Amino acid sequence: MSKIKVLDQGYVKLIEAWGTGEAGEPEAGSLQFPDFEVGIIEAARQSTQGSFRGWDTDEKLLATIFHHQENQSTPFEAAGMTIEVEAPIFVFREWHRHRTQSYNEASARYRPLEPKYYKPERDNVIERGKKAVDDRNKQAQAKVGYQDTFDTPAVTGWLMMVEDLYKQAEKVYEWALEKGIPKELARITMPVGHYSCMRASANLRNWLAFLTLRLDEKAQWEIRQYAHAVEVLVKHTFPRTYKLFADKLYGG
Amino acid sequence: MSKIKVLDQGYVKLIEAWGTGEAGEPEAGSLQFPDFEVGIIEAARQSTQGSFRGWDTDEKLLATIFHHQENQSTPFEAAGMTIEVEAPIFVFREWHRHRTQSYNEASARYRPLEPKYYKPERDNVIERGKKAVDDRNKQAQAKVGYQDTFDTPAVTGWLMMVEDLYKQAEKVYEWALEKGIPKELARITMPVGHYSCMRASANLRNWLAFLTLRLDEKAQWEIRQYAHAVEVLVKHTFPRTYKLFADKLYGG
Amino acid sequence: MSKIKVLDQGYVKLIEAWGTGEAGEPEAGSLQFPDFEVGIIEAARQSTQGSFRGWDTDEKLLATIFHHQENQSTPFEAAGMTIEVEAPIFVFREWHRHRTQSYNEASARYRPLEPKYYKPERDNVIERGKKAVDDRNKQAQAKVGYQDTFDTPAVTGWLMMVEDLYKQAEKVYEWALEKGIPKELARITMPVGHYSCMRASANLRNWLAFLTLRLDEKAQWEIRQYAHAVEVLVKHTFPRTYKLFADKLYGG
Amino acid sequence: MSKIKVLDQGYVKLIEAWGTGEAGEPEAGSLQFPDFEVGIIEAARQSTQGSFRGWDTDEKLLATIFHHQENQSTPFEAAGMTIEVEAPIFVFREWHRHRTQSYNEASARYRPLEPKYYKPERDNVIERGKKAVDDRNKQAQAKVGYQDTFDTPAVTGWLMMVEDLYKQAEKVYEWALEKGIPKELARITMPVGHYSCMRASANLRNWLAFLTLRLDEKAQWEIRQYAHAVEVLVKHTFPRTYKLFADKLYGG
Repeated sequence: MSKIKVLDQGYVKLIEAWGTGEAGEPEAGSLQFPDFEVGIIEAARQSTQGSFRGWDTDEKLLATIFHHQENQSTPFEAAGMTIEVEAPIFVFREWHRHRTQSYNEASARYRPLEPKYYKPERDNVIERGKKAVDDRNKQAQAKVGYQDTFDTPAVTGWLMMVEDLYKQAEKVYEWALEKGIPKELARITMPVGHYSCMRASANLRNWLAFLTLRLDEKAQWEIRQYAHAVEVLVKHTFPRTYKLFADKLYGG
Repeated sequence: MSKIKVLDQGYVKLIEAWGTGEAGEPEAGSLQFPDFEVGIIEAARQSTQGSFRGWDTDEKLLATIFHHQENQSTPFEAAGMTIEVEAPIFVFREWHRHRTQSYNEASARYRPLEPKYYKPERDNVIERGKKAVDDRNKQAQAKVGYQDTFDTPAVTGWLMMVEDLYKQAEKVYEWALEKGIPKELARITMPVGHYSCMRASANLRNWLAFLTLRLDEKAQWEIRQYAHAVEVLVKHTFPRTYKLFADKLYGG
Repeated sequence: MSKIKVLDQGYVKLIEAWGTGEAGEPEAGSLQFPDFEVGIIEAARQSTQGSFRGWDTDEKLLATIFHHQENQSTPFEAAGMTIEVEAPIFVFREWHRHRTQSYNEASARYRPLEPKYYKPERDNVIERGKKAVDDRNKQAQAKVGYQDTFDTPAVTGWLMMVEDLYKQAEKVYEWALEKGIPKELARITMPVGHYSCMRASANLRNWLAFLTLRLDEKAQWEIRQYAHAVEVLVKHTFPRTYKLFADKLYGG
Repeated sequence: MSKIKVLDQGYVKLIEAWGTGEAGEPEAGSLQFPDFEVGIIEAARQSTQGSFRGWDTDEKLLATIFHHQENQSTPFEAAGMTIEVEAPIFVFREWHRHRTQSYNEASARYRPLEPKYYKPERDNVIERGKKAVDDRNKQAQAKVGYQDTFDTPAVTGWLMMVEDLYKQAEKVYEWALEKGIPKELARITMPVGHYSCMRASANLRNWLAFLTLRLDEKAQWEIRQYAHAVEVLVKHTFPRTYKLFADKLYGG
């Protein structure tokens, strides 16, 4: 599966999945695609009556453990995936608050940063700016005559300033490296809109928890775009589990 | 890989491994074995200079991250394995204290237990009994004339009592099930020497932590036998990492 | 706060709570009770506008973070409690599956076990046995003429067998210890109805997750009794948070 | 305990500690200081023979569990502390990789950032720059005639550029907020040298793991300064445990 582009220069990419259990792995030499959800069913079968027996009888079991309360989501820990992500630092700052994933991020201590910076789209900024003003007006509706408006023309100006600042920051960074300022110090001027890259690894249960939080409309728009890309990978790799997840989240 | 027998009736069995990353997975249709350590190197490369480039240059990187202090063991979280284990309940009680693994155990609430019980070997009991007495004598050496001895003939008696008790427990359990006592209640008489079965899933970093604790000679002999079986699986699946681990643990 | 008795011989007991933050700790020498929820509000205030300012304005904030989706339950990790629990081994086996608590349990490897065994109450067994039969009959309702009944008189017989087996197990255990069989081996005949003792420590967020799972009617009756005792401690120690929790769980 | 200043404008501050167990809490109305290590001993005693009995007999137990391999560090999870930290974003980026702590950080989505930026000291930059050059020269010693030198005068220039960039970034940020650009977007130009503030909460076992990694000389100088401040708090709050830790780390 190729990269899924996210934002202006980022991406999400499936590196590896697991969850075949014993019966989901195609025989050596076969051209079949592995089934990464068999391991979930085999794990769930542990607590009931034995090994995997084909999807017609197991669809119901999967639904049962998915919706069941009492600590039965552990079978979803028997599958998982590793992905590669390129995203702005401020997105990683939110992402890393999920303490159940394993991260390996490009270290600005050891490796010079590439000159990639996140520039929001004008229309997107305007839309979000207007929404924020609307929200504030609603909250302030009691105050007679109060009416905030969004300064749309300012967006163009701000985007130019953002671009200038990025350029300036890049110049300072490169100059510092050239002069031998240690990389770990040279980076302190880097804006959080700068792109970084990482591998993230988690089991399926934790990926679903990530999606539940980051697909939520209260999540910042940028990380939501990444969550949507992860959602595509989950749907592709774990289609039956995804269907249960989507039915619950979006109403089935 | 087939089952590795442990104790009188238990086993450990590899269900699935992961860690191929992008470059370690053989092409579809190939008969090659996957390389489950490429993902570790690819993850480590994130923080330095790019993707996997062959083992000649990477052996050193693996050694560096293995021995490095500062939070660099995360690449070993990019690989892992799921195993199946059959062991006495008292072994599982110790095993489950490792909170970084995912467990799916046969539930005695939903599924009648099979009549399998752990019977220690006579020689093993004698050896451990003698060692315990020796230890106590050493600690008490100040007390003049104190000399404890181990009652070897008692071992045979005890093993018979153990067998009788197991039989009695099995009879009570089966009678209860027959009479309709709910399974979750019927099990309360089950001795902790009774076998149970589970799947356990963890990343390689956590498997190594498990081994470090449970291969230690202070660990109870029974769980140490399971740790040795897990060690065989780790050696087989992650040979380069295992070499580093073994050199450190046993002296290289 | 004194012990809360659970089952026939078990208990739950508050050892220590935390969460006072900066402003919730009474001054040295004061006779006031500490407020263990101030730390939650102070932590939540981090992300908004500053430090704790009194409960009139903060009740709403607490409700907001409690019901909010997007990873905002972390303030509830700024408070917590340590408890002591005496419960049958089969209850601990379920309890220890919660991997976010810290456990320190009496070790049967180092310390002889006290002769305390769980004997269920006759009426409780009958009630649960009847319910199980009813459930089975409902599931089988299609089969003409099928009608399972619960063998109530058998309960008395089973309880006598349980008591006999416990006595027998105790005798074998004591005999083994007397003969010098190492404690870690002598225990293998111990039934899972035997009591053990532990300290469990967790933050409030994780205690609430424990309660959500273990107060559920699908949880085994015995662990549910322990969950109810923990619920009493949470209510006593974190009354405002508990109110939000209870309103959500039981409908407010 | 008052704030411990770190770097040019940051600090670490103890908010709250726990670990008194049952016997370490002074009586209500007393002016005594609580003993936050009694809970550790009480937890350890669980697995041996009963409750806390005074430090003369328990110092040895503490040392035993501290140095013991086999999963016996759990008693150190029965104590802990919550601290407040003000540090540059790039320090928090490293800090948050410790997934066993609970974080509540000021959110730049909800709250405008204060104009505080980290400016390294000239001498410190020179020292680290020279060391980096030395290291590179050592690695390259084979190459005849290769000799890198550190451009000391450049440091003054770089520090001026850093200051200018900070000022520019602050201006752009304030202008954006004034024009109504949503805070979550306005922040994208913020350099990672900008200060942020958080509460961090963890048990003592995890604080010691944090110290082991971040006191290490391979850790970046800036986070090492924070680790030293945390070390002071640990020493003050858990003196006996700290002594064992320091003896091991620094040689006793």
